[in-house]
Amino acid sequence: MMADLLITNVRPHGGALTSILVQSGRIAAFGVAEGQGRAVFDGAGRLAIPGLVEAHAHLDKTLYGMPWYVNTVGPRLIDKIDNERACKRSLGIDAQRQSARQVALTVGHGTTHIRTHVDVDTECGVSSIEGVMATREAHADHVDMQIVAFPQSGLLRRPGTLELMDAAMRLGADAVGGIDPCSMDRDPKGHLDAVFGLAQRYGKGVDIHLHEPGEMGAFSMDLIIERARALGMRQQSVVISHAFCLGMPDIAAADALMAELAAAEIAIMTTGAPSRPVPPLQRARAAGVVVGTGSDGIRDTWGPYGNGDLLERAMFLGLRNNLRKDSEIELALDVCTHGGAAMMGLSDYGLAVGKPADLVLLEGPCVAEAVMSRRADRITFKRGVLTARAGAALFSVP
Amino acid sequence: MMADLLITNVRPHGGALTSILVQSGRIAAFGVAEGQGRAVFDGAGRLAIPGLVEAHAHLDKTLYGMPWYVNTVGPRLIDKIDNERACKRSLGIDAQRQSARQVALTVGHGTTHIRTHVDVDTECGVSSIEGVMATREAHADHVDMQIVAFPQSGLLRRPGTLELMDAAMRLGADAVGGIDPCSMDRDPKGHLDAVFGLAQRYGKGVDIHLHEPGEMGAFSMDLIIERARALGMRQQSVVISHAFCLGMPDIAAADALMAELAAAEIAIMTTGAPSRPVPPLQRARAAGVVVGTGSDGIRDTWGPYGNGDLLERAMFLGLRNNLRKDSEIELALDVCTHGGAAMMGLSDYGLAVGKPADLVLLEGPCVAEAVMSRRADRITFKRGVLTARAGAALFSVP
Repeated sequence: MMADLLITNVRPHGGALTSILVQSGRIAAFGVAEGQGRAVFDGAGRLAIPGLVEAHAHLDKTLYGMPWYVNTVGPRLIDKIDNERACKRSLGIDAQRQSARQVALTVGHGTTHIRTHVDVDTECGVSSIEGVMATREAHADHVDMQIVAFPQSGLLRRPGTLELMDAAMRLGADAVGGIDPCSMDRDPKGHLDAVFGLAQRYGKGVDIHLHEPGEMGAFSMDLIIERARALGMRQQSVVISHAFCLGMPDIAAADALMAELAAAEIAIMTTGAPSRPVPPLQRARAAGVVVGTGSDGIRDTWGPYGNGDLLERAMFLGLRNNLRKDSEIELALDVCTHGGAAMMGLSDYGLAVGKPADLVLLEGPCVAEAVMSRRADRITFKRGVLTARAGAALFSVP
Repeated sequence: MMADLLITNVRPHGGALTSILVQSGRIAAFGVAEGQGRAVFDGAGRLAIPGLVEAHAHLDKTLYGMPWYVNTVGPRLIDKIDNERACKRSLGIDAQRQSARQVALTVGHGTTHIRTHVDVDTECGVSSIEGVMATREAHADHVDMQIVAFPQSGLLRRPGTLELMDAAMRLGADAVGGIDPCSMDRDPKGHLDAVFGLAQRYGKGVDIHLHEPGEMGAFSMDLIIERARALGMRQQSVVISHAFCLGMPDIAAADALMAELAAAEIAIMTTGAPSRPVPPLQRARAAGVVVGTGSDGIRDTWGPYGNGDLLERAMFLGLRNNLRKDSEIELALDVCTHGGAAMMGLSDYGLAVGKPADLVLLEGPCVAEAVMSRRADRITFKRGVLTARAGAALFSVP
């Protein structure tokens, strides 16, 4: 049995100084005095926030820790997809090794939960799924991980992929992924029936990449909502990632879609991409839509950006959505914590008695300042055990 | 007379290892061997790039180094302008002290040149101009600075401002500022005639904040081009900052405007703002428009963002413009160096024999990687003298 730990001198969400008693890896009480021979960790006046939630990653294919990749890839989506499939072999992008590296990187920044999409295609088969599963097991004490089987190269257009997706679900993937039902497979009904069919067979949720813009994306979204409703899939078991169509100029149409998403309990994920239309964050939240966020791919063959820091993501969300007030920056950070947790369907989350002691201590006078300064000096606990200090994970990876 | 300095083991722009001989503060030669009793600075294999150019700052009103400002300001532009004018007194935002702090911050990141807009209005008069001028003099060895007299609160709508702008030019401001001729002063002809009139009287250039979107902004831009042509103002002596209208949906109209800007030798400045339409960077450069960039306001009463790091700005430009290839990231960085220098009309700039030894040494295998990693470990020289190491200026400020 784990010894008790008392984390003293911390300010939950920037509030008054208190202490957090951790028993058996969970928050047992706030405001407990030292004594009774308990181990003490002095928070030294730091802010305490719940663990950061990386709700959309691609752990299997980051190049982080590998030699710099000089990107000369063409401009079309299919250029990037085809190039990546080829690079996995030519560069030796090992899913197990690379996912472990990104786990260490992002836990170093304060992450305690990850949802990762993992490629399933006719070249890598389910080997990337197996690699990331090995990482999940190796780091089970450091991070909770959900794995989405992701048909990056298309589901129907490359025969054999659907069978591999089925195999990935048999292996234990947590959700069925999908991508651009109109523009990728050019058969929205076929694509979505396949995705939802798999989900029904395995009793899992879905998480669909929807980059399609404007009215085309809205059509695909409508088809997703229709299926979620018909199948009675509620409570964020259906997630639409990116959802660029919600950033379309026709705000009335976007509002109507967001009202439907909220009613159907379908969540969205947005990275706040600066170069694309994106869901309007405050409007989506006001409509009652659950919103999570994530890094998307970092330092991969698609592009060189990203570092797995969810505080930086909060800044990006703020910049993209023109958030300026402290209360608005707090909302952006909330998307990186509670929003992502809700999107992932996690009920066991938050700075509250009874919840796992998954938390991050940050320097700074208040939450908004901490987001803006993004100091490396962060202290991360997973179920009451230290996992990272000073921006670096306290465990090693290949 | 300054002693010679040989900076060894550096890779200019990521090229082959060489050395840079500095004599009397200028680059005298590349590839010179050690010896002759010269002082040596070992670059240890680092990249060398020309000094970063902060081509659009507001040094007089950052809150950097002051207590955290809890932002509760309203959503309209005028809310922010009115709030700021009031805060200058209530918070004690001293232009001299604050500008010095931002100088140290940004030089710490590798900046060697700054153009700053400085507020002129009926409440602060020209006191902010005087404060920033004192900072410019105090830090003349650390950074070259241009000062734009900036009518933030409007030029015509607040009587007395034009006379103060005249006084600022008499004090030695380097350019006449302006702001949103239609939407701020509601008299585009009157506003621009006043701005260009002052510029003619003092033989200086202009740098106009143009946030106006779409067709309204295009109209104002057209009026600016008309005046620049009529007055024979060439060679980037006219700058249009932000130029959001160039991001309008009508790409053909934007292309026509950019062709006119290029022909008239009018430069633009873009920060790559994620929440607004922005000039399309690659299209603007391809059209022959000179483009600089800058931090705009950092950590002020307008908003909490920004840190004065031009490498981060290169990343923002890349994200906003969907730049992914190494060559595209190099273009983004070029906007932060040569682009800004050209926008500011600096001929004495660049990593070339005869130019001042204003340069930054960066760790990393190549330029694109250095932009993405943005390590604190940077070494900055101004006219051959070290001004910053490890992310911090080597001089002190209040």
